[in-house]
Amino acid sequence: MAKQNIFDNQVFFDGYKKIRENEGSANNVFEMPALYSLLPDLNGKHILDLGCGFGEHCMDYIKKGAERIVGIDISEKMLEVAKKENSDPKITYLLMPMEDIGSINEKFDVVISSLAIHYVDDFTGVLSNIHKLLSDGGVFIFSQEHPMSTCHSDGDRWTRDENGNKLHLNLKNYGVEKETESVWFVDNVKRYHRMFSTIVNDLIEAGFEIVKMIEPLPDDEILAKYPDQKDLFHKPDFLVVKAKKR
Amino acid sequence: MAKQNIFDNQVFFDGYKKIRENEGSANNVFEMPALYSLLPDLNGKHILDLGCGFGEHCMDYIKKGAERIVGIDISEKMLEVAKKENSDPKITYLLMPMEDIGSINEKFDVVISSLAIHYVDDFTGVLSNIHKLLSDGGVFIFSQEHPMSTCHSDGDRWTRDENGNKLHLNLKNYGVEKETESVWFVDNVKRYHRMFSTIVNDLIEAGFEIVKMIEPLPDDEILAKYPDQKDLFHKPDFLVVKAKKR
Repeated sequence: MAKQNIFDNQVFFDGYKKIRENEGSANNVFEMPALYSLLPDLNGKHILDLGCGFGEHCMDYIKKGAERIVGIDISEKMLEVAKKENSDPKITYLLMPMEDIGSINEKFDVVISSLAIHYVDDFTGVLSNIHKLLSDGGVFIFSQEHPMSTCHSDGDRWTRDENGNKLHLNLKNYGVEKETESVWFVDNVKRYHRMFSTIVNDLIEAGFEIVKMIEPLPDDEILAKYPDQKDLFHKPDFLVVKAKKR
Repeated sequence: MAKQNIFDNQVFFDGYKKIRENEGSANNVFEMPALYSLLPDLNGKHILDLGCGFGEHCMDYIKKGAERIVGIDISEKMLEVAKKENSDPKITYLLMPMEDIGSINEKFDVVISSLAIHYVDDFTGVLSNIHKLLSDGGVFIFSQEHPMSTCHSDGDRWTRDENGNKLHLNLKNYGVEKETESVWFVDNVKRYHRMFSTIVNDLIEAGFEIVKMIEPLPDDEILAKYPDQKDLFHKPDFLVVKAKKR
């Protein structure tokens, strides 16, 4: 199966880096807080970060007491930044697609993945490897684009009023589980759409127990700061999941 | 909290009865097969059917070997039909809103509910009572309108082309968990919208483990017989869930 590496495309890389550095980005306001809210106590823990990117998360896990972190990413350019900006004796960065983690010969207490799993075609294969790499009772925590986002492949995702305000999402093909291509800085960014029930059932069949799911929404404080985020009440941007090895 | 009893409204009742008797209805083609596919071996089992309606399901459970069935419904008119058309010494029909099942002094191996739970406001209260009524390792299996349906309160749910074909669902307010009113035979049928993550988290917090979720879609055979059902690939009509008492 194809292992997609859009992040080594310079245009994508530059655009993506800019978003991540924006304090008010959806990642920073919604996705990261939701993901971190599901973390167990990391003191002394061994952690595997799938799609670690620039390694900022790895540094956060050290601050939270983690003892050892392996961060993998498919992008050489991103790992270059990670090694330069977020280096630590406790962190090992590996250039590796998520589909190849079966080759890692080590056990982890927590496997975590931020906004990377929707780029993976072989979800069940990755889940099976994560299950093997986890210690007994270990947890897998991940965020992904919302299933009502991954089913869309084209531009006219929203119907707007004459002032450009979003009226409703034009939802189609939610039940069609396939590769979708979208334009995000560059053409042909491939995402793999899976329905809610598929995500849940695949986790369970791989030997996980669902612990919690979050579809992050803005609270009053966030709405006061970022009024446009009210549109998330039509459709959340992310799905965040915590699952435990059985 | 209000306990809604639309089924004793004569207009609603007549319309609903007609749908249920239609072999090609969404209930018969998608919801019931999905629900029944999640049933464990019912031989010798004690079953509680929440919102049993006309009692057809109760009769099916007897055919599948169940030893005792309690069917509850809030509608006197529906239970009249149930007692007349689907009576059996192994079945006890009780006139009771789902919110009051805490008063039942009996244990069950399986609690099942077909397309009734979205009429209930106090979901967590009902879940807590179901948990108490289940024997150790017992299962709760239910179907409901899909969460992308329950969030809609008005008529223009779909955008269609000039020939009336559905182009996309106009999805809005998925993140707003509240009572919605819709027109279904009569005005003001109240449904209670809950996001996917809320349904999952409420089950887990009530002491259940998620076993399987189904968003029923048509296969080739069904599409050949009912071509219009292709629209379900934009948005499934139902969500069906199996959960196990921990």
